[in-house]
Amino acid sequence: MYRMDPIQYRLPQSRIPQAWYNIQPDLPKPLAPVLHPGTLKPIGPDDLTPLFPMSLILQEVSTEREIEIPEEVRQVYAQWRPSPLFRARRLEKVLDTPARIYYKYEGVSPAGSHKPNTAVAQAYYNKKEGAKRLITETGAGQWGSALAMACAFFGLECKVYMVRVSYDQKPYRRALMEVFGASVTASPSDETESGRAILAQNPQSNGSLGIAISEAVEAAAKDPHTKYALGSFLNHVLLHQTVIGLEAMEQMALAGDEPDVIIGCTGGGSNFAGLAMPYLGRKIRGQCQAHVVAVEPAACPSLTKGKFTYDFADTGHLTPLVKMHTLGSSFIPPGIHAGGLRYHGMAPLVSHVMDLGLIEASAVQQLDAFAAGIQFARAEGIIPAPEANHAVAGAISEALRAKQEGKQRTILFNLSGHGHFDMQSYIDYQAGKLQNYDYPAEEIAMALAGLPTVA
Amino acid sequence: MYRMDPIQYRLPQSRIPQAWYNIQPDLPKPLAPVLHPGTLKPIGPDDLTPLFPMSLILQEVSTEREIEIPEEVRQVYAQWRPSPLFRARRLEKVLDTPARIYYKYEGVSPAGSHKPNTAVAQAYYNKKEGAKRLITETGAGQWGSALAMACAFFGLECKVYMVRVSYDQKPYRRALMEVFGASVTASPSDETESGRAILAQNPQSNGSLGIAISEAVEAAAKDPHTKYALGSFLNHVLLHQTVIGLEAMEQMALAGDEPDVIIGCTGGGSNFAGLAMPYLGRKIRGQCQAHVVAVEPAACPSLTKGKFTYDFADTGHLTPLVKMHTLGSSFIPPGIHAGGLRYHGMAPLVSHVMDLGLIEASAVQQLDAFAAGIQFARAEGIIPAPEANHAVAGAISEALRAKQEGKQRTILFNLSGHGHFDMQSYIDYQAGKLQNYDYPAEEIAMALAGLPTVA
Repeated sequence: MYRMDPIQYRLPQSRIPQAWYNIQPDLPKPLAPVLHPGTLKPIGPDDLTPLFPMSLILQEVSTEREIEIPEEVRQVYAQWRPSPLFRARRLEKVLDTPARIYYKYEGVSPAGSHKPNTAVAQAYYNKKEGAKRLITETGAGQWGSALAMACAFFGLECKVYMVRVSYDQKPYRRALMEVFGASVTASPSDETESGRAILAQNPQSNGSLGIAISEAVEAAAKDPHTKYALGSFLNHVLLHQTVIGLEAMEQMALAGDEPDVIIGCTGGGSNFAGLAMPYLGRKIRGQCQAHVVAVEPAACPSLTKGKFTYDFADTGHLTPLVKMHTLGSSFIPPGIHAGGLRYHGMAPLVSHVMDLGLIEASAVQQLDAFAAGIQFARAEGIIPAPEANHAVAGAISEALRAKQEGKQRTILFNLSGHGHFDMQSYIDYQAGKLQNYDYPAEEIAMALAGLPTVA
Repeated sequence: MYRMDPIQYRLPQSRIPQAWYNIQPDLPKPLAPVLHPGTLKPIGPDDLTPLFPMSLILQEVSTEREIEIPEEVRQVYAQWRPSPLFRARRLEKVLDTPARIYYKYEGVSPAGSHKPNTAVAQAYYNKKEGAKRLITETGAGQWGSALAMACAFFGLECKVYMVRVSYDQKPYRRALMEVFGASVTASPSDETESGRAILAQNPQSNGSLGIAISEAVEAAAKDPHTKYALGSFLNHVLLHQTVIGLEAMEQMALAGDEPDVIIGCTGGGSNFAGLAMPYLGRKIRGQCQAHVVAVEPAACPSLTKGKFTYDFADTGHLTPLVKMHTLGSSFIPPGIHAGGLRYHGMAPLVSHVMDLGLIEASAVQQLDAFAAGIQFARAEGIIPAPEANHAVAGAISEALRAKQEGKQRTILFNLSGHGHFDMQSYIDYQAGKLQNYDYPAEEIAMALAGLPTVA
């Protein structure tokens, strides 16, 4: 006799998606081309071969709607996928809201976030095409630990440039990467020209994702057996994350419900895109009316305050130019604890769907994000990562609006990772040591003024 | 087309067990009675009412084989139960063993271990019988955070005495309890007579579970609205953990396999018992031939080196006398990182089945446990808790023996929790700062010499 309220919607190993969903062929207007910073002409696949294996370069520009997931990748996914979808009934009760709140929980992966969805795929393709070593950067450490794990599984060496502020704040994240066998260096470092240039200006630099990308790209380009791996931003990375949304659709159907609002936090944009893109595909085809909301930190508000234009993906200006919402590649965001969201730009695909009016964006202050995270933890038991707290805050405010309006509403958000390696930020928050950051208008204006001019 | 090797065996929410399994009616010989330390006569339910609600006292001595799990408890279990059973195919490959290795993974609970299985049940019964506050102790912090979470769910206050060495080594475990709203005090403390007595002898005391139990019991007994909660050792606690083994049996059937060896780590005995007891019930009925192995730390070897006799459960001698394998209640184990295994005694039920010859025991050194944990992490992605590393070491050594003997063997072990809050121990291990501890023969001999004499 089974009378419990369903709160978990699980799928068996056999329901791991067979293919990633690529939104590019469904877009009403194609993505702007990626430009060579010298010639300002579109780059071709060959320009990227020093950094990426050809399979990933082809995925970057693919116009196939479905891209088959290799069996070896699905086999590793089976360690934690399909990830659970939960209904947050206890949180609904605490909020006393008529809204139904669902969350897709990506913190069940061994590295604790959505990042292994792409780390495993990237390690697989690199190994297959002969790479011996991967170099990357990491902000909060979620991406670095995911790649370190994936490299351990596929027998690749792994080197990670970790943003200095996280390296200092999160020694246990670093330890996790080292347990997986990776080597970790604080960025900016004196190992690269890019790092030395920043240190010359400011020996106490906190670092940023933009700086760490420069260092990793520079180091990877030096060695033919070494490739570079990026944990967000690029089309192929977002593509690999679409397993989140594809599974969520099947699980929402199990729940007999349909989302009215879909929410994810955005830094580079990958976990948001992973949940949102499959739904946006439906939206473009007129099969879904949901509001899709990206929630970003008020201290680093690329979607709500940035400019949609060509910019570099890194601070050292080693990357091609990409069209995106940017705060300016020389902008170094304040040291908020949601290190994974401290990035000047937004993924071109996410920027593009924003420009097309398919999604909305809002910004949340640091203290509000932590307050939401603690409310969530006490109701649901799970401690969210500081990044994910932005999505939680977005979901709670939608639920409270539904209460105010006296309307039912179905909210689905992506709980992209747990906060087990971020407890210092919770200690600091509870001790009253964290602060909000005003929109850094002046620094951003300066950074935007320095952008390259593209006709 | 589904061609992946199955590695996960999941059950839906509806397959959460409806009843816990109580081995007591199946035992060929009953448990020795619990004695009043003054009269040396068996205690009755009324002796325990200052500390526990009546439902739990009755479970402690129940002779019902199946005890129904309340729907409210199963509803909370649904946050993470049924927990997954995995086949460790990548580990098998690394070990190059003919053995098949399965593990039940309890680290998926929000608090990260098996402890919420009983914490939720205890909070439920206490709330139902009118308690306002629970007091407990914690070693590594797994139990404390589980109870803190359960109290948050059921609207109870929670106070935790945390063993000093863990309090200092694991600030993030403490932070987790505080995020859930619990208050945490390092033990020994000056808040209780038991604590002050220890501090008077040794102001620098590292503490131990035995000391912290004395403090929690003393504090709880003072207030009629406050009850005491224990995270291991007692019959009702082990009972609540049997969901582990009950689910595992169903999952092993899904895998089409049967364990030849069943392994768990033992401190107080609860995660081991949770997996083992349902299988031992079958073993008693002649339906299972598996070897059942308890793996304990060499530094605190109650099953392999202790005496099976009456002793106190705590250092301050506030508890009744129970018959168990003990190293002597005044023995304070060395400060190994597997804080959850630093306890002088073994659960009476586990001690009893050991005495009946139904299980075996072995001891593992600290450095071997960590080496096993790192090998496991690199193969499977999951970082085990230092306690669980003992079970991992046991499983790996069984798999290597199978390889040596060239025999197939099916190994099932309980991965009782993750090590996300134990990364300092991995840092110390990798830096060569950890040590093995010889069997502390002299201290144990002294502690055993001081045991009470019971006819």
